[in-house]
Amino acid sequence: MYSDKLQKMLEKLGIGTGDTIKVESGEVKIEGELMPKTEVGDPDTVIIKMLNGYNLGIKIDKNTKITKVKSTKQLTEFPFVPLVKQKGLPEVDMIWTGGTIGSKIEYKTGAVLHSRVKPEELLYYIPEIKEIANISVDHLFGTASENLSYIEWQKIAEATADGINKGAKGVVIAHGTDTMQYTAAALSFMLGKLSAPVIMTGSQRSGDRGSSDAFFNLAGAVATAARSDIGEVCICMHASSSDDRLMLIRGVKARKMHTSRRDAFRPINDRPIGFVSKNKYEISYSSEYRKVEKGKVEAKTKFEPKVAIVKAYPNSDPEIIGYFKSKGYKGLIIEGTGLGHTPVETAKKEYSWLPHIKRAVDDGLVVGITSQTIYGRTNSNVYTPLRLLSNAGAIHCEDMSTETAYVKLGWLLGNYKADKVKELLVTNLAGEINKRITYDEFLV
Amino acid sequence: MYSDKLQKMLEKLGIGTGDTIKVESGEVKIEGELMPKTEVGDPDTVIIKMLNGYNLGIKIDKNTKITKVKSTKQLTEFPFVPLVKQKGLPEVDMIWTGGTIGSKIEYKTGAVLHSRVKPEELLYYIPEIKEIANISVDHLFGTASENLSYIEWQKIAEATADGINKGAKGVVIAHGTDTMQYTAAALSFMLGKLSAPVIMTGSQRSGDRGSSDAFFNLAGAVATAARSDIGEVCICMHASSSDDRLMLIRGVKARKMHTSRRDAFRPINDRPIGFVSKNKYEISYSSEYRKVEKGKVEAKTKFEPKVAIVKAYPNSDPEIIGYFKSKGYKGLIIEGTGLGHTPVETAKKEYSWLPHIKRAVDDGLVVGITSQTIYGRTNSNVYTPLRLLSNAGAIHCEDMSTETAYVKLGWLLGNYKADKVKELLVTNLAGEINKRITYDEFLV
Repeated sequence: MYSDKLQKMLEKLGIGTGDTIKVESGEVKIEGELMPKTEVGDPDTVIIKMLNGYNLGIKIDKNTKITKVKSTKQLTEFPFVPLVKQKGLPEVDMIWTGGTIGSKIEYKTGAVLHSRVKPEELLYYIPEIKEIANISVDHLFGTASENLSYIEWQKIAEATADGINKGAKGVVIAHGTDTMQYTAAALSFMLGKLSAPVIMTGSQRSGDRGSSDAFFNLAGAVATAARSDIGEVCICMHASSSDDRLMLIRGVKARKMHTSRRDAFRPINDRPIGFVSKNKYEISYSSEYRKVEKGKVEAKTKFEPKVAIVKAYPNSDPEIIGYFKSKGYKGLIIEGTGLGHTPVETAKKEYSWLPHIKRAVDDGLVVGITSQTIYGRTNSNVYTPLRLLSNAGAIHCEDMSTETAYVKLGWLLGNYKADKVKELLVTNLAGEINKRITYDEFLV
Repeated sequence: MYSDKLQKMLEKLGIGTGDTIKVESGEVKIEGELMPKTEVGDPDTVIIKMLNGYNLGIKIDKNTKITKVKSTKQLTEFPFVPLVKQKGLPEVDMIWTGGTIGSKIEYKTGAVLHSRVKPEELLYYIPEIKEIANISVDHLFGTASENLSYIEWQKIAEATADGINKGAKGVVIAHGTDTMQYTAAALSFMLGKLSAPVIMTGSQRSGDRGSSDAFFNLAGAVATAARSDIGEVCICMHASSSDDRLMLIRGVKARKMHTSRRDAFRPINDRPIGFVSKNKYEISYSSEYRKVEKGKVEAKTKFEPKVAIVKAYPNSDPEIIGYFKSKGYKGLIIEGTGLGHTPVETAKKEYSWLPHIKRAVDDGLVVGITSQTIYGRTNSNVYTPLRLLSNAGAIHCEDMSTETAYVKLGWLLGNYKADKVKELLVTNLAGEINKRITYDEFLV
């Protein structure tokens, strides 16, 4: 809601939502449509949709001058304009799965409503995309990503393979940010070698908010899909909190590291593959990557969902392993402490995880261990307790994130027998194991 | 093991482990005791314990000159020298709990053996500590921290309160790094207002390794305990990967973020309280902190161990909540995705966490929600699914880390009734809730 003062000013000028206005403050002159005011946010700020499609929030104070340029009918819906293809541009498939990037704010409450925006509407507001590629949109679903499961991963993998095999130069997957890293890992393993870039993107703030990252992320993802030769599943999101460039992160090495920042996605134990500039969406590469390889893409989508992540911590109950076993689980990823520890030599015997892990392995479960430190490599050789875990049959998952190890184990169990699963879990398949972590890969 | 070449060179010079040697390489001249060689590590590097007590690894090549200064009997044990008190120095209590800082490498295998070093031995090698404070050592136990539970937290809290109440200027707690953040949070809540600094420290590499952080960390922790007016439980560990300064991190906001780096401990959604210089262990403060307050310290050590951390992720099984309920659990911290989500509107109904959370709350469990992103604040007001969780009675734990929220919930349930627990869980008690996270608090 606006402050009383600003509300009165707008009323006095006869300005309503959807009108084209001009705001001048010193050197800054902005013209565009006045967007609806949310009930959250600063009461002295107006949101203006500029002619280039971007939204901008401007704080109105006594030095700001507002003029009405022209009246418009109240803005209630984005205009729907069908996509028109242009000759000579690369074809990019856009697979739409939902998330904040496809959401709108409910103006009364400030809450975000999911799946209210058609992708074509967003694309309409990013005119530069028309210069980069011809877009075909595949409305797969409109789901907040915390509600996705392996069933949707399989559908996305199939749609991606299909798009590439039908000749797309690249594929963009618009996705919620909450579980993007899980889907990125699943697609990396399911799709294997790629003959076209697969670029995932999303937004931390919906497209109708002043600070939205939806437009830049989507345009950069399209440019990367259209122009790069990356044969990997990548995440393309803001590199920093400012709007200056995007970062391309290997899907199996990406992690959402902040609840709300636009630059929440970071590479873990890895360098970024590259960056996309604000200016002309130019791609610069900062580390090695797998290049596209000719050939049909085959989606190996089988997945064993009976795999769980279990966290080990002080006072934690190791009998949880028996619970999962009784429910028919085939694999566990234990998120341990430090180099991949669990409690093993505890004063209270019932807190020791060792006998439970041993029993699970003996019963045929595959047990992997990662670290809750996020960064660094697990190591089964440094401390005696780690050797005890190794001797019990637990597998330390190198430098893989818990999320990637979890998805990888589910995918392996869906496709291979237990012995092969154990071997492949610690074999690098899609860039998920970095044999040599360098010093510049911490807190990037 | 040494390379053949280096082994022969040492034999020719009649140099054995424990001998005092001089190594010259260009401008660099180092004198000290030759430390035992591990089976891991570079075969052309010798480890020298210098006169100032620090270990240094030096690569030997054709430009390096080694001379034997004097023979010593084989070094098999650290010498034991009792601590001597000096008049006029502040009294610092050192509570010894174990961990890598109290470990040695098993030279045959390169593995770390726990609790083989007496703290007095380490202190002997840090002569500067004698100028800072008189140390009284309390050998509480010698346990790798992954094996600690709330029972040890209670003992540490009691020993700390005891030391302060008997007149110590400050308390240093030597602790394993794996679960240091959990113990730091437990002590913060159990001890409340403090009339002396409580500084936890440890090391990522044991004291007999060339790159050990044990000496600097311990000396800096003693200096902070002896000289600062911080009335909070802090963690004092390396600020960067070089040996230049230490960082003081609020215990309830600290997190081990790397499996092996010496600068693994970072502040989460918080700024460091300050830094300790290499030069003279001078303390510089970088943000506000609670100052010591006069009065007796009371350890409120009651703790409810029937609290679990449960991670929510794609395909995760919400029936796990029923498992914990059936085992008599009183509280759960659900580590959700993004702003604090769990799956709620899934295609497969059995994947929705909502009915299970609602039932647990209705049955009297306290259910808190944190985020697996690590950084940022949970927010129950942005998205509809978050409101559904809130309406079901789940409590979003602001910007607390999962570890801190977990320890806090166990401590609250040990000391208060459920209604008060719910209120206090989101009330700042010990700096664990930062109302305003700033931009410089991401990936610090």
